[in-house]
Amino acid sequence: MKVIILAGGKGTRLWPMSREKYSKQFLKLVDDTPLIEASYQRALKVVNPEDIVTITNKDYYFYTKEICDKFSPSLSQNIITEPVGKNTAPAIALSVQYLIDKLNADKSEVTFVFTSDHIIKPLEKFIAYMEAAKNAANKGYLVTFGIKPTRPETGYGYIKIGEELGDFNKVEQFVEKPDIETAKMYLDSGVYFWNSGMFVFKIFTFLEELKEHEPRIFENIQKGFDVALNNFQDMPSISIDYALMEKSRRVSVVPMDIFWSDIGSWDSFYEIKEHDQDGNVLVGDVEVIDVKNSLVFANGRLVAVTGVEDLIVVETDDAILVTKRGNGEIVKEIIEKLKKENRKEAIEHQEIFRPWGSYKTLETGDRYRIKRVVVKSGESLSLQMHHHRTEHWVVIRGTAQVTIGDKTFFVHEGESTFVPKSTLHRLANLGKVPLELIEVQNGEYVEEDDIVRFEDKYGRVDK
Amino acid sequence: MKVIILAGGKGTRLWPMSREKYSKQFLKLVDDTPLIEASYQRALKVVNPEDIVTITNKDYYFYTKEICDKFSPSLSQNIITEPVGKNTAPAIALSVQYLIDKLNADKSEVTFVFTSDHIIKPLEKFIAYMEAAKNAANKGYLVTFGIKPTRPETGYGYIKIGEELGDFNKVEQFVEKPDIETAKMYLDSGVYFWNSGMFVFKIFTFLEELKEHEPRIFENIQKGFDVALNNFQDMPSISIDYALMEKSRRVSVVPMDIFWSDIGSWDSFYEIKEHDQDGNVLVGDVEVIDVKNSLVFANGRLVAVTGVEDLIVVETDDAILVTKRGNGEIVKEIIEKLKKENRKEAIEHQEIFRPWGSYKTLETGDRYRIKRVVVKSGESLSLQMHHHRTEHWVVIRGTAQVTIGDKTFFVHEGESTFVPKSTLHRLANLGKVPLELIEVQNGEYVEEDDIVRFEDKYGRVDK
Repeated sequence: MKVIILAGGKGTRLWPMSREKYSKQFLKLVDDTPLIEASYQRALKVVNPEDIVTITNKDYYFYTKEICDKFSPSLSQNIITEPVGKNTAPAIALSVQYLIDKLNADKSEVTFVFTSDHIIKPLEKFIAYMEAAKNAANKGYLVTFGIKPTRPETGYGYIKIGEELGDFNKVEQFVEKPDIETAKMYLDSGVYFWNSGMFVFKIFTFLEELKEHEPRIFENIQKGFDVALNNFQDMPSISIDYALMEKSRRVSVVPMDIFWSDIGSWDSFYEIKEHDQDGNVLVGDVEVIDVKNSLVFANGRLVAVTGVEDLIVVETDDAILVTKRGNGEIVKEIIEKLKKENRKEAIEHQEIFRPWGSYKTLETGDRYRIKRVVVKSGESLSLQMHHHRTEHWVVIRGTAQVTIGDKTFFVHEGESTFVPKSTLHRLANLGKVPLELIEVQNGEYVEEDDIVRFEDKYGRVDK
Repeated sequence: MKVIILAGGKGTRLWPMSREKYSKQFLKLVDDTPLIEASYQRALKVVNPEDIVTITNKDYYFYTKEICDKFSPSLSQNIITEPVGKNTAPAIALSVQYLIDKLNADKSEVTFVFTSDHIIKPLEKFIAYMEAAKNAANKGYLVTFGIKPTRPETGYGYIKIGEELGDFNKVEQFVEKPDIETAKMYLDSGVYFWNSGMFVFKIFTFLEELKEHEPRIFENIQKGFDVALNNFQDMPSISIDYALMEKSRRVSVVPMDIFWSDIGSWDSFYEIKEHDQDGNVLVGDVEVIDVKNSLVFANGRLVAVTGVEDLIVVETDDAILVTKRGNGEIVKEIIEKLKKENRKEAIEHQEIFRPWGSYKTLETGDRYRIKRVVVKSGESLSLQMHHHRTEHWVVIRGTAQVTIGDKTFFVHEGESTFVPKSTLHRLANLGKVPLELIEVQNGEYVEEDDIVRFEDKYGRVDK
């Protein structure tokens, strides 16, 4: 058995918490576990780490790898980075070819395709449904998971279940997002289920159906994984639903009575969280007086809200969103607007994650910039120099190995060092605990692009 | 002629912009001029700097002095700091005694009492009204200024004008804040004016009326300014309106057709600012989509607001307020709540002003704290030491004179120095431009109270 985890989705509808370069699956929305980590936990209930392939994009690679590393090195080894985003059908097809070429999957093997940014609970119940789905896949079906609706939701597609075949059903029809009246009818009918975006199939079944219904993608992956990856930009951009599920005559569904959400908006986040007696969901440092049915999410600062109803307030380091509940789609418009204005707030957070660690800008002023830099144990930054700024490093935790010019030495907690302009330098953490330091940049020009890199173990721009 | 500026009011109704230790008069709400500075500009149209006395409290002394310094040293010399806040009657009486004892005022001199936190414009028109008020005062009246109402305001007291006496009128009646129906009636009547809280009188008139109607205060100041200041806590806490104006039979009013506001709430701030075509007042880095009749005030971060009406959003470094328009009084409740919880956000800003300059906490973490420190030209901090932390100072602008242990030396822009634990140190700016530095504190305890002070030129806790 194999598992494919889809982790390339650029979910920005939870802006300003999610950003183009830091998507929903990495957020800790339900508890202290990022959504994608919960997805691996589910997968590892049915397969071993070496049977899981993850497909993501290069922006998310390090975040994904960091979470994979928590479980097993073999999980981290099997991460595919799409050169461009091409929707779910090409992503799944490429991943299937990876299973065949790199993980020696047998074509008779049942494969689960899981999303990385949904909530499903309880886990035990889901495991039982997975068993049913496996049975269906073994009988030659492309299997989907339908969620028993609990409200007339207009934000999801639906699956109309057909003939019962033991613990699963044939699919009678896939239907698009309905209007509210239709959604109410679906809810009452008992035969319409939410389309959860997860799938199970034997590789052989998948390939046969792909060949029949989406031959362009099929031919691409027939050339083998490496070639298909290289030519990925030539793939048609199409969802697995359009490409296969809605066309195939071999589609079945496992109807599930389980808690599931795609947390596709702040509205749905509000819905899934527990409400207090005033109908509020309050997260973080929040004070409310006379507030009803509202979501207030504070990440750092105090947020005081009074005299409002049905409001959503989300506070982050560099951006604050205030919007009406039931208005989720408008967040997209904001992001479009911000992107047109080249606002970094649409793209990334103040804290930037890199393979070697992370850095966060604390303050930028005329002629100076202050950052907090964290270097992971065993990691180092590229050998580099800056023409227009000096850098002072004050170590606040751990031990830094510092190279400045032709000298290499250690700087300990509470100590500092100084990098003159136009001087080669490198920062490394040979220790066992993360290295934290404050960097004070000072000079006539303190932008990120004043950097000359000489060596970089990752072969990519990292700081 | 003399002027008294009342600058002790703890206006926190514009929280989170105003704080208990940084009140409304110091905010730049209308333009780049703090309200109190505009108040001095008005006063200096009728008197010289040495004829102005300011009464404030010790928390506001340095802010007040800094603004006075912009005009003239004699303005700064005549600042009274109340030991405790006692409302306007004792403050004005004490200031009058100061005029007599310290500025050798003749009892026949006309004295203006100005607020420091109101908006009045245009200045030219106001000067003409001041002339009328001076005439009235010379005729032996306690003169008030009435503002012609432009809306049925329920937040102000009113003055009903009586018999016309040239360019001023007798006062028929003072009335309390009305309900909305009464306010509408006042507006239509043409004889009710807003009570602006400014006064003009001859010192002699004031003292006579005070003796008659508020003998406790009169007796206190009869002992001379220094004694009265020392015994200030024994003064009754009463407003000048209750103590004198509503009782005296010698009260007149100058009715003014002029723009005036006490900016007593975010609602009134919204009212006085120019609105865009959607009725919005947007200040700072704000993005709106589908927003109407709202105030969004961003001081640092991006604030994105969508799909709301009649909302007020105010963003500051450490606190964000979201409230419904027309709900101004509730801000008071929030502050009460925050104060009960000992929240610093109710009391002061992230940036703290001191006689020698200012500092702002950029980040606090486990075992460290980072501050940006600004030392004014010619100023220095107390000689001090800390038992639990080291301090690294990186100069980003100007030149520091640093004393560490028994060494004194200079640290220039782009250079740094290090203060070990339990080591005496002092920071001074002997230069001509402000000194800006980044301080990285590091140690097992980084709270403000780990400080031993040895010398302090101000004789007060300053850092």
